[in-house]
Amino acid sequence: MGEGALIDRIVRRAGLEPGGRWVLGIGDDAAVLATRTGEELVFTTDAQVEGVHFRFDREPARVVGRRALAVNLSDLAAMGASPVGALLSLSAPGSLALSRFDGLIEGFVDEAGRYGCPLVGGNLSSAERCSLHVTVIGRCRRGRALRRSGLRAGDRLFVTGRLGAAALARHTADRHGAALRRVPTPRLVAGQALAGLSGTRACIDLSDGLATDLAHLLEGTGFGADVDPAKLPTPRGFAGRCRALGLDPLAVAALGGEDYELLFALRDGPARAEGHDPRSLSRRLGVAVTEIGRVGGAPGVRGLPPVARGHHFGGRR
Amino acid sequence: MGEGALIDRIVRRAGLEPGGRWVLGIGDDAAVLATRTGEELVFTTDAQVEGVHFRFDREPARVVGRRALAVNLSDLAAMGASPVGALLSLSAPGSLALSRFDGLIEGFVDEAGRYGCPLVGGNLSSAERCSLHVTVIGRCRRGRALRRSGLRAGDRLFVTGRLGAAALARHTADRHGAALRRVPTPRLVAGQALAGLSGTRACIDLSDGLATDLAHLLEGTGFGADVDPAKLPTPRGFAGRCRALGLDPLAVAALGGEDYELLFALRDGPARAEGHDPRSLSRRLGVAVTEIGRVGGAPGVRGLPPVARGHHFGGRR
Repeated sequence: MGEGALIDRIVRRAGLEPGGRWVLGIGDDAAVLATRTGEELVFTTDAQVEGVHFRFDREPARVVGRRALAVNLSDLAAMGASPVGALLSLSAPGSLALSRFDGLIEGFVDEAGRYGCPLVGGNLSSAERCSLHVTVIGRCRRGRALRRSGLRAGDRLFVTGRLGAAALARHTADRHGAALRRVPTPRLVAGQALAGLSGTRACIDLSDGLATDLAHLLEGTGFGADVDPAKLPTPRGFAGRCRALGLDPLAVAALGGEDYELLFALRDGPARAEGHDPRSLSRRLGVAVTEIGRVGGAPGVRGLPPVARGHHFGGRR
Repeated sequence: MGEGALIDRIVRRAGLEPGGRWVLGIGDDAAVLATRTGEELVFTTDAQVEGVHFRFDREPARVVGRRALAVNLSDLAAMGASPVGALLSLSAPGSLALSRFDGLIEGFVDEAGRYGCPLVGGNLSSAERCSLHVTVIGRCRRGRALRRSGLRAGDRLFVTGRLGAAALARHTADRHGAALRRVPTPRLVAGQALAGLSGTRACIDLSDGLATDLAHLLEGTGFGADVDPAKLPTPRGFAGRCRALGLDPLAVAALGGEDYELLFALRDGPARAEGHDPRSLSRRLGVAVTEIGRVGGAPGVRGLPPVARGHHFGGRR
């Protein structure tokens, strides 16, 4: 099947005109977006690579397509931004089954529909293995994008949701050869709420694991952090299931990665009275929020297992 | 070498803060751009895949890095847009020589500097083979983006520059196993001039070859086109060099692809008096312009060899 026919299959699933402020979508040399004053556009890119992030014999193509967009939306969430649109650069061998091609696109477009992030452009190219390289465009009010930088001593550290489920599922699947079928939930509503909150100091999404991503937030600050390992929120029955696989629950929760929850810091002090307790925060962010520690002291993260050295180039799994 | 160390190598070459309207560049979850009224942003994505678009034993990594950006800038040119910034999603095996990694980045950043298109974000992932997936952001005045659609009977067809050089170089390299070293020149100045010209009807960049890309412009119009094959502009000595390789010069010029020149249509009539002759156009567009034919008649392109069927999924070479 030629490229034109494949693009037709995409258009049939995604639609040609994304609407809203998109002046032009799929089918021309580029997509065109009308801009507005008082806002900032936010750009991020991430990839799912066959043999590294997914295997077609382990999960349906639809799940891969959904995840390819979801991990990018998670980066928007960490900026406190709302989705505007997405571009997909898809590489695949000529031998890729058409049902898998369609599955990738349907999953992507399905996820796009859930979060109001239309597919507005893309590219198809041959390659020996399949990969999906996604760029997502978001928007936020001028000056309100959440950053990774800015932590100060005394800031309180929080996470959304629960940690370790993705890593445990990966370990379980490796053991049993089971299908993975995990699509993270991008914390877009939580990120947008944090961007509107006074006192939010920094935010990052947990893709590499709490210990690694917290180290990213601390980079260049000169400070360390104290985390209470007993406070890390994990799914029900998590410790037992880890031990049944011979794994240390704390290591899985703190180092496992791919949680795609938000790790954020709020400044301490008067803001405490403004409903910065976990219960009020959970209500405002629309997801469970747990306070896990505090910024300060000498560099290094105390309370979490050390991150292994020699982390491999890029991906995982 | 870990991902963080590799990102440091990129930052050392690209800089952390792209400046201008970029509020935030490499190093956070996403890049952030301040927007303006009265303008539109333009988005395009394209890839260079090892074994499909390049081979490291055939050309230096720097050239691959430059071309990865240049082919995207060519799409901006076809929209009449100016570059604003670029994101790079780079996949590579852990075994990729560091000198090649650096070469890819240096080539990319070098090209970015030439055209004022800073690298503002990206992603690194493992893969068995190397690939560079690039998204470029451009801008143009509201309502002025050049489109592929809109051709009408009587419109005059033009191309910039010369055709067939890329295809001939590819054939020559295939024959002699020589290095390729080709980086197309994105016709950004020409595209911007066309966007400001009254009477520009449609524009596309010649990536797949004149015959194929002209068919793209004609899609859905109900018209065909008459092209004068004697008028196709080719490099000096082109016909002789094609024949020496046993190739038909017209087929190489019309079907070869990867010229990355602009094919555009101007409406006929009064506009003719406004300096729409090739000589005046060449002056305004900053590159040689040749009139090659006219839109009209029954569907189909007369005067060019037919495009081979069964065009392969995506790439070439």
